[in-house]
Amino acid sequence: MRVTVSGGVHGNELLGIYLVKLLQREEPHFENIALEFLLANPKAIAQCRRYIDRDLNRSFSKEALESDAAIYEYERAKVLAKRLEQCDFLIDLHTTTANMGITVVLSSDDALSANIAKILALEYENVRILRWLSNDEGAFINSVVPHSITIEVGPVCQGVLDANLFFATKKVLLRALDILNKEERCDEKVECYDIVDARDFPRIDGEIAGMIHPELLGRDYELLHPGDPIFIEFDGKEHFFEEESCYPVFINEAAYYEKGAAFYLTKKSTL
Amino acid sequence: MRVTVSGGVHGNELLGIYLVKLLQREEPHFENIALEFLLANPKAIAQCRRYIDRDLNRSFSKEALESDAAIYEYERAKVLAKRLEQCDFLIDLHTTTANMGITVVLSSDDALSANIAKILALEYENVRILRWLSNDEGAFINSVVPHSITIEVGPVCQGVLDANLFFATKKVLLRALDILNKEERCDEKVECYDIVDARDFPRIDGEIAGMIHPELLGRDYELLHPGDPIFIEFDGKEHFFEEESCYPVFINEAAYYEKGAAFYLTKKSTL
Repeated sequence: MRVTVSGGVHGNELLGIYLVKLLQREEPHFENIALEFLLANPKAIAQCRRYIDRDLNRSFSKEALESDAAIYEYERAKVLAKRLEQCDFLIDLHTTTANMGITVVLSSDDALSANIAKILALEYENVRILRWLSNDEGAFINSVVPHSITIEVGPVCQGVLDANLFFATKKVLLRALDILNKEERCDEKVECYDIVDARDFPRIDGEIAGMIHPELLGRDYELLHPGDPIFIEFDGKEHFFEEESCYPVFINEAAYYEKGAAFYLTKKSTL
Repeated sequence: MRVTVSGGVHGNELLGIYLVKLLQREEPHFENIALEFLLANPKAIAQCRRYIDRDLNRSFSKEALESDAAIYEYERAKVLAKRLEQCDFLIDLHTTTANMGITVVLSSDDALSANIAKILALEYENVRILRWLSNDEGAFINSVVPHSITIEVGPVCQGVLDANLFFATKKVLLRALDILNKEERCDEKVECYDIVDARDFPRIDGEIAGMIHPELLGRDYELLHPGDPIFIEFDGKEHFFEEESCYPVFINEAAYYEKGAAFYLTKKSTL
């Protein structure tokens, strides 16, 4: 099986970049795996920015891959789509400023990817499974490979490294490769969270008019009830949740301010 | 007295930007103060980046201000230096990813600035004074005004807002203006921290080879002793502090990775 581990799809998410570089040096061996490493957005990595022109992890739609626009990430996506043509399984490493621990994101509905996610979630207390099956903004890098997981780790600021999260992620990543190598199977049902919607910040003429409420900040994966405070405006006015209970994720993720998502709503499900 | 409050000297430090915008709307009145507001780096603010070409807060040296290089921040520094010619007192708002609470930074040795810092540190438990009198990299915006304080708030990631820190900073800022307005004096001696040196990450060929040790992370202003762990390499090798005891600050500040500072060393002093 040909497996690729990628970091630096976003150039300011240092954990994945330095973990890929470490494993390139350590060369871990798995007898049934042809392992490759990828630093996906070298220009953004060099500048420690999420992207240069456009979010690379929204640049793999058919339209983007066929576009001849002079957008660095569109050009890069074409190169990566070609390079990943022979890849059977992609493990893509990301970080988030939200308090999401180690989240295994599934962006397609295939059994092999779900199997890995389930085993990791059962074995590690701090690992949760998030299904993110559709995304209006553009396709993830995962869309050009048959099987994949994204490992999303936080809270950590853009442009910094957190040693505890680094070593915890390394352990989970190596175990994921080990599961693939041994073709382990999991027949248990495992809890997961399905993204169902996004909620934007209060805005006036497009500009942010409030912040995540202190009582919501850091409470990713904790049940949010109707009536709970969610935002506080700069002048102190509070906003309350008015929908049916759900589990919020990506609360106050830096990169999603511009995407119009203060947090995402999820429902608990089983896989 | 003409007082300017500036935010957005660094375009991804949102607290100061949104606090300036709020006060522009609220128009607080102080009878003895002509109050002005400044969003210092509009191009960087629009792109939510620290800077476009060069750190604006290192672009106020004589050389930079006389340079005709096509560097956006050098050009902007000239505009700001002109605009601040009539300013008596500057309050410049910043954030840091380090766990520094509300730090009042003094970058010149004048009595008026020190007086404000002392009163704030005495009144607010979470306010500390940091003296940063010299900086090899280039002059701060503070260098073009006779008196100033910088308010440096953390921990908060670049590109995000933290409501608790926002409101706490607003309170301290308004109190600083109130002190200036009433010309209050403080004759007590107050504790402060003097920056004496910086320590860089372990590096190999210029590239980072390790992270802040988990036992140091978040412990700004806590006494660091000889033998305490400070770094951990990606392969797990630990580095220990070998110098005489000091108080570290700016531990793991995102913007200082490129400046070669994993943290700064300070000594306690009185003001």
